[in-house]
Amino acid sequence: MTCIVLFTDFGPSGPYIGQMESVLRLTAPHVPVINLLSNAPTANPRLSSYLLAALRYSFPVSSIFLAVVDPGVGGKRRAVVLQADGQIFVGPDNGLLNTVAVQSQNTKWSEIVWRPEHCSMSFHGRDIFAPIAAKLAINTAAKLLQPFDRNDLNDWPQDLAEVIYFDHYGNAMTGLRYSDVYSGKTLTVNGIQIKQADTFGAVEEQQAFWYKNSSGLVEVAVNKGHADQQLALKLGMRVGF
Amino acid sequence: MTCIVLFTDFGPSGPYIGQMESVLRLTAPHVPVINLLSNAPTANPRLSSYLLAALRYSFPVSSIFLAVVDPGVGGKRRAVVLQADGQIFVGPDNGLLNTVAVQSQNTKWSEIVWRPEHCSMSFHGRDIFAPIAAKLAINTAAKLLQPFDRNDLNDWPQDLAEVIYFDHYGNAMTGLRYSDVYSGKTLTVNGIQIKQADTFGAVEEQQAFWYKNSSGLVEVAVNKGHADQQLALKLGMRVGF
Amino acid sequence: MTCIVLFTDFGPSGPYIGQMESVLRLTAPHVPVINLLSNAPTANPRLSSYLLAALRYSFPVSSIFLAVVDPGVGGKRRAVVLQADGQIFVGPDNGLLNTVAVQSQNTKWSEIVWRPEHCSMSFHGRDIFAPIAAKLAINTAAKLLQPFDRNDLNDWPQDLAEVIYFDHYGNAMTGLRYSDVYSGKTLTVNGIQIKQADTFGAVEEQQAFWYKNSSGLVEVAVNKGHADQQLALKLGMRVGF
Repeated sequence: MTCIVLFTDFGPSGPYIGQMESVLRLTAPHVPVINLLSNAPTANPRLSSYLLAALRYSFPVSSIFLAVVDPGVGGKRRAVVLQADGQIFVGPDNGLLNTVAVQSQNTKWSEIVWRPEHCSMSFHGRDIFAPIAAKLAINTAAKLLQPFDRNDLNDWPQDLAEVIYFDHYGNAMTGLRYSDVYSGKTLTVNGIQIKQADTFGAVEEQQAFWYKNSSGLVEVAVNKGHADQQLALKLGMRVGF
Repeated sequence: MTCIVLFTDFGPSGPYIGQMESVLRLTAPHVPVINLLSNAPTANPRLSSYLLAALRYSFPVSSIFLAVVDPGVGGKRRAVVLQADGQIFVGPDNGLLNTVAVQSQNTKWSEIVWRPEHCSMSFHGRDIFAPIAAKLAINTAAKLLQPFDRNDLNDWPQDLAEVIYFDHYGNAMTGLRYSDVYSGKTLTVNGIQIKQADTFGAVEEQQAFWYKNSSGLVEVAVNKGHADQQLALKLGMRVGF
Repeated sequence: MTCIVLFTDFGPSGPYIGQMESVLRLTAPHVPVINLLSNAPTANPRLSSYLLAALRYSFPVSSIFLAVVDPGVGGKRRAVVLQADGQIFVGPDNGLLNTVAVQSQNTKWSEIVWRPEHCSMSFHGRDIFAPIAAKLAINTAAKLLQPFDRNDLNDWPQDLAEVIYFDHYGNAMTGLRYSDVYSGKTLTVNGIQIKQADTFGAVEEQQAFWYKNSSGLVEVAVNKGHADQQLALKLGMRVGF
C-alpha cells in the first residue's frame, strides 16, 4: 500500500503542512497522507536523521516519506530521492536521509533535476519535494530524477550516542538502537547514572530509568515525571554505557 | 458511518499519532480517522474519562473511539473494549472508559485477549489498541475479545466537580454536565465566585463567567482573557455551586 | 477538485478541529479535509484576515475555506459565505473574510440564514459553519443562503503594515504583499533596521533579514535564530519601508 508520510520540523499548528497536503492531493488525490511528526529537531538534519531512521519501521514497504528539515533551503544543497529497502524518501541532501541509507541493505540515490515553473526560495517542501513525492506515488517521476553514486557516507555513524528527541512526555530518545549487549548496563547522561527497566511501573515514581522504546531506540524517562526537565537534558547531549 | 476517532495524551507533534494511523490504514484502509484530541490530561485517565464522555456526542452512532491515556502500559491493567449505546471504545482498563460506561444505558465490556506477535512494552496504542480498533471497523475482532461482567463501577461518579481540561484559549472545562438546576447559580472555584453568562460578549472584557459549553459541560472562561492564568486554575481543582 | 480547508485559532491539540471534521464527514464523506492552520492570531479576525488572504493561493479554485476566528460567537455578527475568484469562504462576518474580498476581482457575499435545530451559543464552527461548508461541497446549500450587497469595505486596507503571524521558527509575517517597489529597501520594525536577503544562507548566523516569503508576504527572520524573541516582536507591531 502506497502512503505518503510527513516528517518535518514545521510545528503542529502552522500553514506549511496544509500547503504541502494541498500539493499532494492535487497530483495524487487517492494516496493517503499521514502526518508522522512535525517537531523534528528544528533546523537540525543530523539529529533528525536518526529519528527518521527509527520511525520508518512503523510504516510498510512502499511507503513514501516526505522528509523536510531544511535550514539550507534556497542554497546549493541538492534535492534528492533515496530508495532504501523498499521504502522511498524525498528531501534535501543535507544529511537528513543519510542514517536511513547507512542502516539499509539496498539503497539507490537520485537527484531531483526537475524544477517547477514557479519555485519559492524558502519552501522547497511545497514547491519541489511534495510534487516529487506525489509523482512518485503515481509513478510519474522517473524522468525527473537523475541517479548518482554515493561514496561519501563511510564515516556516517550507524548509531549516535546522543539525545536526539524529546517526546510530549519529556522522554529523551537517543540515536542508539537497542542491542542485547546493552542489557543490564548503566547509562550515563549529563553526569547521571541511569539503570534499565522494562516499564514505567517497574520503578518508583519520579525515578529515572532507560529502556528499549517502541521504535527500538534507547530512551530515558522518569516515571510520572519529565526526564527532560528533571535531568536537565538537552538535544545533542552525549550518552554512554 | 463507521469512523475511528483518536483520543489521546500523545501531544500534537510527536510520532505516536502517525504510528497508530499507519496501523489503522493497513488493516482498515477505507475507514476514516479523525484526530479528536491529543492533549488529554497527561497520564490522568480519571480526569480524561469525563472529557471523553462529553466529547463522544459530537460523533455518530457506530463511531469507534481509540482512547489511549495509559500510564500503566506494560503493567497488569487489562486491555478492553466497551460497547456503549451504539458507540465502541477501545483502550486500557484504568478508568479511562468508566465515565462513558456509567453515563450510558446499554454497555458491554470485553477484554482483548489477542496479542500481536511482536508487542512493545511501552506503546500498546500502536501494538494492541489500534489493531483491535481497525479489526472492529471491518468486523473481524469478535474472536479476539472475551466478554466480562463489570460489578465494580457502583462508586464511579457520573459527574465530577473538578476542573478536567483547559482548551487552547485557557477556558476550564469541568466534569459537571450542565443541568437546569445550576441555572443562575454562582460557581465557586479556587475561592473565586463566578456568575453565569450565555456568551463571551455578555460580560465585560477580562471578566470571568461560567456557561454551558458546546459539549454540555459547565465551563469557566474569561472574556478576551485566559481563565487558566487569570484565575490560577489547575487540573483537578474542585468546583461547586 | 473540491476540498475543505480549515483555518482557525483553535490550537493544534484540542477537540474543536475533530468535532468540526465529524460534521463535515457526516454530510460530505468523500470531500477531503485539509487542516491548513490552527494558530491564527487568537480572537483577532483583523490580523487573521491578512494571513488567510495570503495562504489561499496554495489551494486550487473551488476550494472551500472553513474559517473560524470568532470571538463574538453567540452575539449579533452575521454568519456569511464569500465567493471570491472561484474559491469559497465560510465564516463569521467580523472582518475575517474582508481582506480576501478586497484583494479579489469577483466577489459575492451571502448571509447564512439557516440555523440547526440545536445550536450551541459558543461553537458556531461546528454547528453552523461546518454544516454549511459541507453542504456547499455537495451543492445543497443554495436555499440556506441570502445574497447581500457589501458597501462598507471601501476603507478596508488591501495590505497591512503590521506583524500578523509568527510561524514555528519565530519568523514574523507581515500583512504586506511583496512588491518590486520594496526591492532593496530597508524595513523598520520595533525601531530596528532590517535589510533584504533572498535566503537564510545569504546572511550571517543570528543576523536578521527580510524577504519575500513563500506565500508572497514580506517576512522578517533571523538566520538560525528566532526573530520573534531576538527582535522582541509582537503581533500588531507596525512595520515600514
